Amino acid sequence: MLTGKRVKIKAKGKIFEGIVMPSFTGNLVLKLDSGYNAGFCEYELIEVLEEVKTQIRGAEISKREDLPNVKIISTGGTIASRVDYRTGAVTSQFTAEEIISDVPEIAEICNVDAELLYNILSENMKPNNWIELARRVYEALKKYDGVIITHGTDTMHYSASAVAFMLSTPKPVVFVGAQRSSDRPSSDAAMNLLCSAKLSISDVGEVLVCMHGSTSDDFCYAHRGVKVRKMHTSRRDAFHSINAKPVARIDYPSLNVEWLSWRFKRGERDLKLFDKLEEKVVLIKFFPGLGSDLIEYFHSKGYRGFVIEGTGLGHVSTDWIETLKKICEDSIVVMTSQCLYGRICDRVYDTGRDLLKAGVIEGEDLLPETALIKLMFLIGNYGIEKAKKLVKINLVGEIESRSDY
Amino acid sequence: MLTGKRVKIKAKGKIFEGIVMPSFTGNLVLKLDSGYNAGFCEYELIEVLEEVKTQIRGAEISKREDLPNVKIISTGGTIASRVDYRTGAVTSQFTAEEIISDVPEIAEICNVDAELLYNILSENMKPNNWIELARRVYEALKKYDGVIITHGTDTMHYSASAVAFMLSTPKPVVFVGAQRSSDRPSSDAAMNLLCSAKLSISDVGEVLVCMHGSTSDDFCYAHRGVKVRKMHTSRRDAFHSINAKPVARIDYPSLNVEWLSWRFKRGERDLKLFDKLEEKVVLIKFFPGLGSDLIEYFHSKGYRGFVIEGTGLGHVSTDWIETLKKICEDSIVVMTSQCLYGRICDRVYDTGRDLLKAGVIEGEDLLPETALIKLMFLIGNYGIEKAKKLVKINLVGEIESRSDY
Repeated sequence: MLTGKRVKIKAKGKIFEGIVMPSFTGNLVLKLDSGYNAGFCEYELIEVLEEVKTQIRGAEISKREDLPNVKIISTGGTIASRVDYRTGAVTSQFTAEEIISDVPEIAEICNVDAELLYNILSENMKPNNWIELARRVYEALKKYDGVIITHGTDTMHYSASAVAFMLSTPKPVVFVGAQRSSDRPSSDAAMNLLCSAKLSISDVGEVLVCMHGSTSDDFCYAHRGVKVRKMHTSRRDAFHSINAKPVARIDYPSLNVEWLSWRFKRGERDLKLFDKLEEKVVLIKFFPGLGSDLIEYFHSKGYRGFVIEGTGLGHVSTDWIETLKKICEDSIVVMTSQCLYGRICDRVYDTGRDLLKAGVIEGEDLLPETALIKLMFLIGNYGIEKAKKLVKINLVGEIESRSDY
Repeated sequence: MLTGKRVKIKAKGKIFEGIVMPSFTGNLVLKLDSGYNAGFCEYELIEVLEEVKTQIRGAEISKREDLPNVKIISTGGTIASRVDYRTGAVTSQFTAEEIISDVPEIAEICNVDAELLYNILSENMKPNNWIELARRVYEALKKYDGVIITHGTDTMHYSASAVAFMLSTPKPVVFVGAQRSSDRPSSDAAMNLLCSAKLSISDVGEVLVCMHGSTSDDFCYAHRGVKVRKMHTSRRDAFHSINAKPVARIDYPSLNVEWLSWRFKRGERDLKLFDKLEEKVVLIKFFPGLGSDLIEYFHSKGYRGFVIEGTGLGHVSTDWIETLKKICEDSIVVMTSQCLYGRICDRVYDTGRDLLKAGVIEGEDLLPETALIKLMFLIGNYGIEKAKKLVKINLVGEIESRSDY
């Protein structure tokens, strides 16, 4: 068993040195000194150098006064999983020492403090978790120059939307994840983390998602939390800004930040927390044959916020109109599109005009997921009637005034 | 009122001649002799030439023996709407004479017969409509060399999927729509129809969707009906093949067909119709906070087919597992991803492995909408148990063996 040992090998005519990682493919996976993992299917073992200590020395990290201070809050997910080099088991510890041990370059960018908030798979996130997360970020922003949140990628865009609505922030709040865990040669964890660190000390004051911008290790995009969506199950560049440009591009390894669109700048907004979310809001995807009794089912359970993922410009079948009209009397119904790209416009066809007459509100170019969170936020903090007025107004960049995309 | 009259105008230093179309923007819209519409904001009227007859002479079309015969079945939607040149009203008539009058170039490609099946907005399509449509196409394929179905774009990919599963076809069955109606200068109706006509006489034997491939009028894509999705509310190139290459590219105006992927060729399959669909199948999009009681609600109403649009590689929150396990005893549950792009893989993380143990079936790289229709088709024709075996097997190109996309 070489796992956990530092070795020197010859492969592809070159010499490589690194720590042997657990591998499930049969290939040799080396963690190189650059922080990257590399996989080798054919190689020649030259030397076993030493065993690596599993316990990383704590309290040895001295902070540099010339660097900004960043808080990293971990919520779990692939990026936070750490493989014990000797046992191969995934550990849930999460300390600044571990981060710096894994990705030493981060210590050149900022002083890091770490906090383990959750260790859950992101598909298990609930609105209550978002409230607790927003509160923690709010507290951290009082003391730190920026906050990074490590998060599972499955629901990262839901969480980023929630924090973006709940928190008026004068500083960067950067969600970062990984599509491939750090025991895989193709892991995106280290690069995403470094780019998010650079972003967290940059001149921006909003909630962003930082992930690979291409399938190569050449740049990350910073997406606006309320305009981003996971668009691929496995690719490292799975996250895309929808109906908006990414906010920034962070080149790697230079970590040069190029701003690509308008943004809230650092210090532009005051720090404020709105920590309520109404949980009884539902997102319903329409399809041919789905009956409107589904709306009535949720209404009878006390739901008063409805986001519909309609077809095309924002349609459902005509036999839904009567139900929607009734529901709209005491509820808010927002129309979005399962096309995802483009803007809702219910003034073109008959069905759309009937929907508007029934009281349904056009969701502009809102993503269905963002509309869901926005309704949770608006109903929770302002009630139904005010929510009806605010839902079409851009609050934190979730609605672009024109759709060029 | 110039509407409906043939005029000669001067604009941008050139002379234009055409029929004045109804316009809602205040601009002058001319239908040029090329079949295209052009909008003019500044122009000088030179001459009013004549009024256009609204009634187009019938029975004057002589069929050419050297051309293939194509049946066009209209189901409604933007592409089938025809504006009466004099009144500006949208008419629902649909005859071969009208088509040839609107798009005369089609008579050079094939002999056309037309049939008005429905005149409904596509958001009002129901599974029963798909059954009737499949039957009509089946009958038409006995006599014609190809079939074109004009369809509203909102649910065209659902209908194309349904016909693709219900019909084993040795000849082309081409769905075509338009994002902009023919009274708009930017209408894509004529070009899409010409490209679909060329496709309907080509060497292919499957159900395709033919729409603009770019925002210019330079080419259309033929998408496989079971791999395509409307991905933009308004763009003319709204349709995209997901997890697959388009089947063909049809250049315009040359109408040259270039095949881009594997395909069923003309004559490769026998003509067969499976005209059953189980309507009690539901597609449920998961989001953080959605309770599994929704599954139980549909189950109690007699639903036995469930497609879940999970997160990432195919996840829902852990508290759904017990319900799913129970439901799987007498139902089929297929997992797809709201990422849309990529493949389901529930063997990577704990939640996924628990889902598999509960009896949930991985939906491979199936689109959620295609998985829904596939379940309707499989349960309707084969019952639950056989459906469980067949759902992961590629039947008509809905599952690609590798995901390179």
